[in-house]
Parts: sequence; C-alpha cells; structure tokens
Amino acid sequence: MRSRIASLQNLTIKNLVKLRRRSARDRQKLMLIDGERALRLAMLNNVKIESIFFKEEAGSSDLLEETAGKKILLQPVSNDVFSKISYGGSPDHFIGLASQPEFSLQNMSQPENAIYLVAEGIEKPGNLGAILRSADAAGVTGLLLCNSRTDIYNPNVIRASRGAFFSVPIADTTSEAALIWLKDNDIHIYAASPYAELLYTKADFTGPSAIAIGAEHEGLSAPWLKEDIVKIPMKGQIDSLNVAQSASILIFEALRQRL
Amino acid sequence: MRSRIASLQNLTIKNLVKLRRRSARDRQKLMLIDGERALRLAMLNNVKIESIFFKEEAGSSDLLEETAGKKILLQPVSNDVFSKISYGGSPDHFIGLASQPEFSLQNMSQPENAIYLVAEGIEKPGNLGAILRSADAAGVTGLLLCNSRTDIYNPNVIRASRGAFFSVPIADTTSEAALIWLKDNDIHIYAASPYAELLYTKADFTGPSAIAIGAEHEGLSAPWLKEDIVKIPMKGQIDSLNVAQSASILIFEALRQRL
Repeated sequence: MRSRIASLQNLTIKNLVKLRRRSARDRQKLMLIDGERALRLAMLNNVKIESIFFKEEAGSSDLLEETAGKKILLQPVSNDVFSKISYGGSPDHFIGLASQPEFSLQNMSQPENAIYLVAEGIEKPGNLGAILRSADAAGVTGLLLCNSRTDIYNPNVIRASRGAFFSVPIADTTSEAALIWLKDNDIHIYAASPYAELLYTKADFTGPSAIAIGAEHEGLSAPWLKEDIVKIPMKGQIDSLNVAQSASILIFEALRQRL
Repeated sequence: MRSRIASLQNLTIKNLVKLRRRSARDRQKLMLIDGERALRLAMLNNVKIESIFFKEEAGSSDLLEETAGKKILLQPVSNDVFSKISYGGSPDHFIGLASQPEFSLQNMSQPENAIYLVAEGIEKPGNLGAILRSADAAGVTGLLLCNSRTDIYNPNVIRASRGAFFSVPIADTTSEAALIWLKDNDIHIYAASPYAELLYTKADFTGPSAIAIGAEHEGLSAPWLKEDIVKIPMKGQIDSLNVAQSASILIFEALRQRL
C-alpha cells in the first residue's frame, strides 16, 4: 500500500518526530526502527510493523518489494522530511513504525538446556545494544532485563544491537520476579562479582544456567549475590570491565563449555 | 608550583581549547588527560605531565598533594574557564596537559611468553578505548595498533579506556611493520576471521602469541589472513560482533588457557 508523499505538516509525520521521546513511545506503545537491516530482522521475527517511511529515491528497493502482502503502509517522504524524522539516527533511507513487542517473563522460551543472560539496572542504550548483539552471537536462550534504567524501545538500543533487539528473546522484568522465575524453573544462577572466589572459567555452565551481570557502576544488587558468584580475573591496573565486555566474556565461556 | 587563577584570555588556556583538535595535538606533540583517575594512572606509569588545570574548589584534593616534587605546574581556573577547556569531556575537576608518550614498536616489551593483541584499522575512539580496557584486564603484553584510523591521543580514547591508555604498552605502527616484527620474534599469529575453519577455542594460545582483529567494517587486511585464522562462532541472526567485544572474547580465551 503506497501513499502520496507526506509533508512535515502531516500529523503522522509530526508524531514520528515525537516518538523519538520516551514519553510518547510509552503512551502510544509504538517504536521506531531505523534502517533496512533492522527492518528486515523485525519482519523475520514477526514484529508488527505498521508503516515504513522512506526517501523517494529509495522507492524501488528490495525491502519494499518484500513487504508485499504484509499490510504495511509504505510512505514516501521528501529528503527534508526524512532528515527531520530520522534525527540523524537512520543509517539509510528507511524508518519503520511498529507496535512495541511485549517482553514478558511468561512468554520467555524454556528449552531443555537453557542458558539465560540476566542484566540488571543497565543505564546506557549503547551498552544494552552491545549486550544484545553478543547475546545473539552466543545464541543465548534469552535476555532477562531486570530493573532497567534505560528504555528498551530507545532507537539507540536497536541501532547499537544491529537488530539483535529482534532476534534475542527478551523479558523486561524486575530482579525479584526474575529470581523467582529462574528458581521455579531449576535454572542454576551464576552472578558476576569482582569479590567472588570462583573464576568464571571454573564454573559449570553446561546445565540449565543463568549468568547475571550488574549495572555499569554498582554491579549486581544483594539478592543476586546470595547465589553462586563468579569473577572475571583482572590482571591490570583498572579495576573494572565495561558491562557489555563482561557479558561477552561470560556468555562465550558458557558457549565454549557447551560446544 | 601553583599559579594564579588563569582567565580565558590567557594564551595557555586558549591553547588547551585548541588541543581538543587533532591538528593542534599533532603539531605540538601534546595531549589532554581528563579526570583524576586518568591522571593518577598517567603519573603511576611515568607519563610526563606538564600541568594540571583544576577548578578552584578542588584546590585541596589529594591528587594535587601527590604531585609534590614532580615539577608539575598546578593551575587553578574559574568554573567558566574549566567548562571551556573541558569541552564537556572531563568527569571531574581536573585536566592534565602532557607530552604525548612515544608508542614505537622498538620499545615494545618482549617477555618470555608474550601475548599481544593486534588491532588493525580501528576507526572509533570509543572502540579503541574499550579494547584498551579489556587488554588491561586480561593482562596482555601489549597492543600493536596497526594502520589506525583514529588518533590514539584523542581524549575520547583515554576516557573510554578508563585510563588503560596509560597502563597497556602500545605500539602505533603499520600492519607491514607489525607482521615483520612478530615473525622476527617468533610470535605465533592468530588472525580473527569469520571465514576461518578453526574455532578460537581450539587454537593454542599458550605459547608466545599474537591475536589480530580487524576494523569495524572490513575486518583484517589480506596479509594477516595468510596467517593461521580463527573464528568466533556466530549462533544468531546478526553476522558480526563489535570489534571490542571480539577482542575481549579472544584475549580472555587466551588468558583462560594460560591460567
């Protein structure tokens, strides 16, 4: 379904600009998806895309052909309008408008030998995106995002994730609920802490496991630290690793043990 | 040595503002160091600091006491001047001015069982900083930075590294020179490539080794790919990892094998 070229006065266009703000996203339960790669991954993973806005010059792209039969409104816009709605955020000529997927713990998949990544209190969209990208590469069962201090629907999360936002199963929940859920499902919890005795390489991630990492500054909250704690060795002069680096190191060690 | 409060008209202050630009840094062979932590690490690692500029209110800090006997000029500035020279870059009340350390291959340390990280063509200061931070944590012998497309003295590199810029031995060189140097020194080279057959976990990093990773987009150049190549498994829908995540995964696997 193709519409005529839309102008900045158009109500839909004005709303797209608003949706760069969290308050508007929260109220409308909508999200923006910047760029062709992210849009493809969203479609591949059955995200409900309402519209795709594109620069006129991109009118003959493969992406647009592939939307056939999907009831997605295709809306060409002028370059001026596009730069307004992309906020410098779009890597190419496409921006999608989609319903926010629901990220409930109840819907989290539970295969036989699950491996979950738990991330508590994450503050920076870029870090959350990087964590998702590593979670996708390592093939984790899902990400339990606990007490998040960043809006998971922030377009910068999706961009930094390279689209892994759509491929990694996510539960947006609290630490309390996640701990209960993991224990109810007999998942062994390993919490990362610089104060642990056990090296992460000596932990056994081969059974159903969850690996928990804490926020950029404070680390994990007390309830997590009552579980088995593991540490990444720090051989240098700096006393901490970036939270996304820590996540990568831990989940790839789990993958190594499972290869 | 304490000076009187400096104003924005002061030539030194004007020059500090200029030093946020690469061209001025290159010409003067100077660099800026933002924040107390980075300054402490610089001093600990014998970087030649010429001056420390600080907000008047920070006049009684421990940091300033510790500079005693080091021939560092201590220069209080007004809040206005400080915000001008910090460019929003300083995490606290201190900015240092230092000579650029020399990062030559000739000075790279060569202990018996060395493990080097090689990073080629890195573009983003944030990625280079993150790589340095992981290199510090993993205790690598040194970073061989080849054909860098970012200025290593960029204050954003130092900030993202959390000061690991000062703790990790660095050689700023070309791929050609690094390859010759590594071979001359009998270092086994492993180059990361998505097209490798060998999993990185099956490579033997226990002997003198170098692990090479490529730029954000293109990966490693052809001469590196003539060496033994290893891959990180990609289990998901996204076909690449961030370069700093890849570096972390690889060098922590080397550390695991060496524990």
